[in-house]
Amino acid sequence: MNLSFLQDLLTHVGQRARQQVGLSPGAGNEDTALARLTESCHNLTESSGEASRIMMAQRALEDYQQLDHEQRLAFFHVLAEHYAADEARIHAAYAAYRESPDNANLSTLFAASEPRRQSLLRRLNLCPGGTYEIVRMRADLLKIIKQHPELKPLDADFAHLFASWFNRGFLMLEAIDWNTPAAVLEKIIRYEAVHAIQDWSDLRGRLDPEDRRCYAFFHPAIGDEPLIFVEVALCKGVPNNIQHLLANSGQTTEREADTAVFYSISNCQKGLKGISFGNFLIKQVVQELQRELPNLSRFVTLSPVPGFSQWLERARDEEGLEVSDLLAHHLQHDDWMNDEEAQQKMAPELRALAAHYLVNVKHRSGQPMDPVARFHLGNGASLHRLNWPGDTSPNGRQQAHGLMVNYLYEPHRIEQNHEAFSRNDSVVCSSEVKKESKANKELAKVPRRETKKETDSLPSKAAEQPPAPKSAADANDSKQAPESLEE
Amino acid sequence: MNLSFLQDLLTHVGQRARQQVGLSPGAGNEDTALARLTESCHNLTESSGEASRIMMAQRALEDYQQLDHEQRLAFFHVLAEHYAADEARIHAAYAAYRESPDNANLSTLFAASEPRRQSLLRRLNLCPGGTYEIVRMRADLLKIIKQHPELKPLDADFAHLFASWFNRGFLMLEAIDWNTPAAVLEKIIRYEAVHAIQDWSDLRGRLDPEDRRCYAFFHPAIGDEPLIFVEVALCKGVPNNIQHLLANSGQTTEREADTAVFYSISNCQKGLKGISFGNFLIKQVVQELQRELPNLSRFVTLSPVPGFSQWLERARDEEGLEVSDLLAHHLQHDDWMNDEEAQQKMAPELRALAAHYLVNVKHRSGQPMDPVARFHLGNGASLHRLNWPGDTSPNGRQQAHGLMVNYLYEPHRIEQNHEAFSRNDSVVCSSEVKKESKANKELAKVPRRETKKETDSLPSKAAEQPPAPKSAADANDSKQAPESLEE
Amino acid sequence: MNLSFLQDLLTHVGQRARQQVGLSPGAGNEDTALARLTESCHNLTESSGEASRIMMAQRALEDYQQLDHEQRLAFFHVLAEHYAADEARIHAAYAAYRESPDNANLSTLFAASEPRRQSLLRRLNLCPGGTYEIVRMRADLLKIIKQHPELKPLDADFAHLFASWFNRGFLMLEAIDWNTPAAVLEKIIRYEAVHAIQDWSDLRGRLDPEDRRCYAFFHPAIGDEPLIFVEVALCKGVPNNIQHLLANSGQTTEREADTAVFYSISNCQKGLKGISFGNFLIKQVVQELQRELPNLSRFVTLSPVPGFSQWLERARDEEGLEVSDLLAHHLQHDDWMNDEEAQQKMAPELRALAAHYLVNVKHRSGQPMDPVARFHLGNGASLHRLNWPGDTSPNGRQQAHGLMVNYLYEPHRIEQNHEAFSRNDSVVCSSEVKKESKANKELAKVPRRETKKETDSLPSKAAEQPPAPKSAADANDSKQAPESLEE
Amino acid sequence: MNLSFLQDLLTHVGQRARQQVGLSPGAGNEDTALARLTESCHNLTESSGEASRIMMAQRALEDYQQLDHEQRLAFFHVLAEHYAADEARIHAAYAAYRESPDNANLSTLFAASEPRRQSLLRRLNLCPGGTYEIVRMRADLLKIIKQHPELKPLDADFAHLFASWFNRGFLMLEAIDWNTPAAVLEKIIRYEAVHAIQDWSDLRGRLDPEDRRCYAFFHPAIGDEPLIFVEVALCKGVPNNIQHLLANSGQTTEREADTAVFYSISNCQKGLKGISFGNFLIKQVVQELQRELPNLSRFVTLSPVPGFSQWLERARDEEGLEVSDLLAHHLQHDDWMNDEEAQQKMAPELRALAAHYLVNVKHRSGQPMDPVARFHLGNGASLHRLNWPGDTSPNGRQQAHGLMVNYLYEPHRIEQNHEAFSRNDSVVCSSEVKKESKANKELAKVPRRETKKETDSLPSKAAEQPPAPKSAADANDSKQAPESLEE
Repeated sequence: MNLSFLQDLLTHVGQRARQQVGLSPGAGNEDTALARLTESCHNLTESSGEASRIMMAQRALEDYQQLDHEQRLAFFHVLAEHYAADEARIHAAYAAYRESPDNANLSTLFAASEPRRQSLLRRLNLCPGGTYEIVRMRADLLKIIKQHPELKPLDADFAHLFASWFNRGFLMLEAIDWNTPAAVLEKIIRYEAVHAIQDWSDLRGRLDPEDRRCYAFFHPAIGDEPLIFVEVALCKGVPNNIQHLLANSGQTTEREADTAVFYSISNCQKGLKGISFGNFLIKQVVQELQRELPNLSRFVTLSPVPGFSQWLERARDEEGLEVSDLLAHHLQHDDWMNDEEAQQKMAPELRALAAHYLVNVKHRSGQPMDPVARFHLGNGASLHRLNWPGDTSPNGRQQAHGLMVNYLYEPHRIEQNHEAFSRNDSVVCSSEVKKESKANKELAKVPRRETKKETDSLPSKAAEQPPAPKSAADANDSKQAPESLEE
Repeated sequence: MNLSFLQDLLTHVGQRARQQVGLSPGAGNEDTALARLTESCHNLTESSGEASRIMMAQRALEDYQQLDHEQRLAFFHVLAEHYAADEARIHAAYAAYRESPDNANLSTLFAASEPRRQSLLRRLNLCPGGTYEIVRMRADLLKIIKQHPELKPLDADFAHLFASWFNRGFLMLEAIDWNTPAAVLEKIIRYEAVHAIQDWSDLRGRLDPEDRRCYAFFHPAIGDEPLIFVEVALCKGVPNNIQHLLANSGQTTEREADTAVFYSISNCQKGLKGISFGNFLIKQVVQELQRELPNLSRFVTLSPVPGFSQWLERARDEEGLEVSDLLAHHLQHDDWMNDEEAQQKMAPELRALAAHYLVNVKHRSGQPMDPVARFHLGNGASLHRLNWPGDTSPNGRQQAHGLMVNYLYEPHRIEQNHEAFSRNDSVVCSSEVKKESKANKELAKVPRRETKKETDSLPSKAAEQPPAPKSAADANDSKQAPESLEE
Repeated sequence: MNLSFLQDLLTHVGQRARQQVGLSPGAGNEDTALARLTESCHNLTESSGEASRIMMAQRALEDYQQLDHEQRLAFFHVLAEHYAADEARIHAAYAAYRESPDNANLSTLFAASEPRRQSLLRRLNLCPGGTYEIVRMRADLLKIIKQHPELKPLDADFAHLFASWFNRGFLMLEAIDWNTPAAVLEKIIRYEAVHAIQDWSDLRGRLDPEDRRCYAFFHPAIGDEPLIFVEVALCKGVPNNIQHLLANSGQTTEREADTAVFYSISNCQKGLKGISFGNFLIKQVVQELQRELPNLSRFVTLSPVPGFSQWLERARDEEGLEVSDLLAHHLQHDDWMNDEEAQQKMAPELRALAAHYLVNVKHRSGQPMDPVARFHLGNGASLHRLNWPGDTSPNGRQQAHGLMVNYLYEPHRIEQNHEAFSRNDSVVCSSEVKKESKANKELAKVPRRETKKETDSLPSKAAEQPPAPKSAADANDSKQAPESLEE
Repeated sequence: MNLSFLQDLLTHVGQRARQQVGLSPGAGNEDTALARLTESCHNLTESSGEASRIMMAQRALEDYQQLDHEQRLAFFHVLAEHYAADEARIHAAYAAYRESPDNANLSTLFAASEPRRQSLLRRLNLCPGGTYEIVRMRADLLKIIKQHPELKPLDADFAHLFASWFNRGFLMLEAIDWNTPAAVLEKIIRYEAVHAIQDWSDLRGRLDPEDRRCYAFFHPAIGDEPLIFVEVALCKGVPNNIQHLLANSGQTTEREADTAVFYSISNCQKGLKGISFGNFLIKQVVQELQRELPNLSRFVTLSPVPGFSQWLERARDEEGLEVSDLLAHHLQHDDWMNDEEAQQKMAPELRALAAHYLVNVKHRSGQPMDPVARFHLGNGASLHRLNWPGDTSPNGRQQAHGLMVNYLYEPHRIEQNHEAFSRNDSVVCSSEVKKESKANKELAKVPRRETKKETDSLPSKAAEQPPAPKSAADANDSKQAPESLEE
């Protein structure tokens, strides 16, 4: 590939891009951001001119930022078509490997089959601030990918690199509190995806009182952009209602608290989808809190059950599940919030349905249908308690008829819980939940495992989540913190 | 691969290791550090138990540190033999790719042919401090590799990962001065590989006066371990003698200085061989200095010529080069240091030989024979001036008969110099040097290009440097700062 | 004074305090916070037990915080009555000094006449956080002092110590921006006393855009409590309206700006009254800005004229000043804000009155009547321009009928302006202002110097400000930043 | 005082200075540093020109630094003669006070009798770096003062200000370790006054191992200049020999250690004489260590006995004390170090003499003769154990025939020990030491209290220490850490 060829390519690419966006070929100024970007990428990978690579990378990323949606699509197609690999080199390397499958030939085959865009992305990363721009580039790609499944393999390349770049060993855990710079705090407000932070006063209530904590992972090359954060409340006993928990900020002293409650965990960077940190974050925060507050004897979550309403609706509509008239009435009219009597009557049936949903209803994969359950159980937590009503906000009623649950993290049981879960898909739960899960005989007739395309059963945003690419799941855990389904 | 298999494997591995080191099989306690390490590695890659990966990684690296030389060799053989790739998966992936060489199939083939040890190393990196331990692991491997060339492909895996992990975008440039923590400064003393730092007082002379600077690259995950550092003197004019330069510390004010002199550049981590930073370091330091000290108008090095003596000896011994009796006498007796008259007589001939060596004598690769010349010319510098006597220390006389040279970094010429060098192997030099390089007609009869195994022509330590693996050379430049040949 | 005496004293003090607050003597528990505090103070000054002074100081300050208003009054009376000085020692020291007025005898007299409460306050300062508590103690004293002028000498002791403790040499200038911890930023919101900050979004508009700056003085022992801060806008030209200035946040680039505008300066600590820092702050900020932004060629304020309305009212009511019917009408109805025609008609007369007020009307002291004018002119600024309407907020109309002015800080004239002002009370002003100040012949009949108690002529809050104690005015300037009259 | 008077004064001062140093009057250039300094001081105190005080202070301090010894003497005489107080104002203030000795008149008298140089020093302190320069100015004064006792009252003014400026509440405790900037560490080497630090390797041995700690007080305005520091060893049991303690660096783990040993405490700033911090430092370090290492159960010193040899010599020479021939011989020949047998024979007698010296021999003040004993006992420690031989270095033998002692800090006894000591001069000691102190009947005939000028009995450097001025002893303890007699 020489420079004149690239000129041709660029012209071609430009035309193609223009065609795709409905412009007539050749009509425009060749010196567009897309053309410059494509040329920079060529230079970065082909030219031997190392001396100015940092500057080239910088310009390329600046040009990328100026692209509109269609131009970005065109650019990703350039990456797909012109930054794959050298076929002949692969054939030769494979031939040698087939002949003698030793490490040297493996190494050569691996090198030959690495898509050239990986090298390109590494070189774009040379310039200051490059890492964050590449993360945002992948966020763009993920938005586009559903309409353009042919670009999926590109995503695997991003994911492969990010698994190295965002290895746990490179992340920094930092406490977020009222002494944190405002520039970071406003990002916490923006990225909170589970229980929205209304304003700075709300934020202060979650950070400043002695019974509140917040921790985030940062990456040194990404500056003050958090990757993921978790909000923690210190409580006496295990809380059962998110509105009460938020309202009681500052009511408990550090001394009194015996329970740390993880009540919100939010991924911040869409471009890091699949490179998730939630597992590591929770465990490191448990360690930090144990060290700082030896009085704490329990670590639980207060978590949403995002798939419950939808499953229940489908089970009733399609699978013949029948519920009592009382329950049917209240669910339909969503009118139980201020009616304590109704609540008492509804509770046993609703709890039994919910316990069944969490313990018995399975995803095609064999794991629990509920994504938040999958995350915490997969991390080695157990299902501790159902709380109803636990979240009476419109969102809480819409997704789970007001249900919340506690998952329990017991340091000495995490490993065995995890093993049981990952080998046998066993949902480790308290005896109380177990009993509730068997209470409703009616449910026997409903299938326990999803029979159709499972993503339909999840809220739409979660549904968009593609399976984590295998290579990304590598150094990090493959399960993304799902409490923040916005992510 | 199940756990009992692994037990077998471990026994086997242990025996093999023992056999290799001459121990009788089965004699020892199976629960050695090696056995534990091997088991941890298995768990890290095979078990689904993500929950305790960080702890497993930590134990594995602790066990690794307890291994002796032979056990490390055995461990590397475990990596070579049991952490390669799944042949069947490769064959299947290739078959699909041959059928349809699209990005999806490429992606699958790439994933299949990635040696499993890369995944293992990423997981070892999960624990705090892991990165540095893995860098040291590679340093061990590089020591072993000469006697065990079969391990070379392993090194490619380390190099591939390090090219991502130590991407320029992740490095931090920091000024080293007298306010730097002592824990870092003692490392500067230890790692200085060009002009040894005698003690703390010597160190202070290189850092504290207003005409001295020092800059290093650090990596966030490696804490206070520098990766590479460069020492700079601010001078009036271009200096010609390293002893004078060191002795004149503190004699020039920032205001007076018009020239920044890079007089020593040292790589610090043997385990990062081939992942070199010198190119980026010099250029970023030039930027820093230009910003801070607008008076500076020149950026030069004062560099050794490590291959000159050896080339000259060989040219005389094997290629029939004849030198004057005077020169022959003084070179043999190494007695010219305090004899100004002798120096004046010797100078023209010696300078002509040296200019010829630097400008005309080529490595088999076509690039200059001298490794320091290759580094700076490859970075886009030009060969500015020969200085004789420039280094009268025993080492300076031994390797280059006291010769030093200045390479000149001119920001606006770096790119074109680099292009000329990398395309045509042109040595860009001043007219003065060019003239000197043609002065000795005698040299016409000596071959200008190495005809035999080139590494013989280099000082032994440089000779050990294997060619940088292609994959490591990726995001970074492939040429390591060679001023510190110790590295 | 021995311990048993102190017991008596304490009993007495307790009774007195109780009597003052209407409790029957002897009725209560002797171990009240006031009793404990009084005892701690005794121990701190009298007991030789140095070993536990820090702890004693800590307890004393904790006890102080628990006192209610009446108990604090009682405590201040304890300080006044029992922590004065030893009369006999003073008489003896004076006798010696009269005999021989040498330095040794002066030193002894000085030591004898130092009120013992100064030593007490120094010892209260031993504990961590003590400094801030003592500052707040003085704030309490200042609130009480108007009703209890007998406590004024106590205030002089605080002021004497604070002049040493808060010496400019101990203060740290820090930039306040969007990376400043939220805990500090919320204090900026709270302490802003000139143009109130509505919320965090308003705050961000004053800190984050590239055309805004904020600087504060901090004291190392007082942590994140600012002492004083100034808000700066970078503008093209000299701004004439505070609402426009605030609304145009972010509209100017650093490059374009030629003028730095100090548009708000607020003292934060009531307890530091008279120990003012505004003079030093403005000058240091000018230096910082000159260094950072060489394009800046002008440093001005956009300042309120807090005494104008009141002076005008009095001049009309009591001194026979007659204004035009038009002006009288609009001032009375405060209805000119949206009536451009009225504004044009009113302007000349109003400006002439204002110019006269600022330039000619004097305080009993001979200095300008307007406190903000006194501050900036005393700092060496000149009166640059009247701006009308400059502040159409209710407060701006209430205190100055919407008038604002610019004071100009010209580094090379500061000294001579200051000299002229402080020697001859000359108001240095631009020729434009000078002309305006002579425009209204009517004013000739109004006295130019205050003839009655001047404080009546100032807004009530400013009126409360006692003359800065001489000893406080010592190392610092005696004129407090008066832009924030709340202080 | 007007400016022309000042001109006269300056001429006069210059002449006086010149006369004092033997120069002819009027001979020199009037525009010397001394003249400029004197003028700056005048401006700082008399001119109303606040605007440029910072710059004036800066210039004044720069001029001061250029003065030679004689000029500094002259400058101090200017301070003494022209910066005292206004006699008439004192007489008037006293008259009012005698009439009515109320707080208002006291306040006026106090203000009138404050020497004007205090105000001058506060204003010199306005400029950055001023504090440290003023501390060094006092160091100069203290050097001069012995030959010029008339300047003593000046010193009281410095001491009065420093008692405020260096109040414990303003000091910061910082751990000094191997991560401390080299610029601070080299000061630790320089200021160590008890057991000299040979070089950086010796320093590292005192800071880096896990059984060593070092803490220092810093003042925010004095940057990286430590005020005082203490070196600590963590040991198993109470150590008895300084050479062993230093040699065993790194031999004990944090876990094993049960005893923290303060083995060296050094004041760093001669200009802060009498403003001592040792008492606070030791107690805060005890707190830090207790918090960090709960295993520690004992806090002791390993301290020198600097006055023992001299006392013993005098008691034998002048007071008829007779020692055994054996002891006399060995003391004379100083030959016992490597002679274990001699040591065993000498020990009982020597220990008894030492115990007597420490427990019974008193200073004219009634406190122990030994300055180190006065310091620790005054801090509330008890005399725990004699160690012989405890310091076999030349210095240790010269000052105390090799004796060292442990003082024991028991947090719960500090207060009562201190009380006993300060009320009754009781030396609280272990029963063992008590017994030893009574063992030698011979001593009955020697006077227990110093009968002649005591300072003669101390090593010369300690002897130079003037009694701490009363005003300096105010907020801080009056006893300076005497372990470092150099100070």
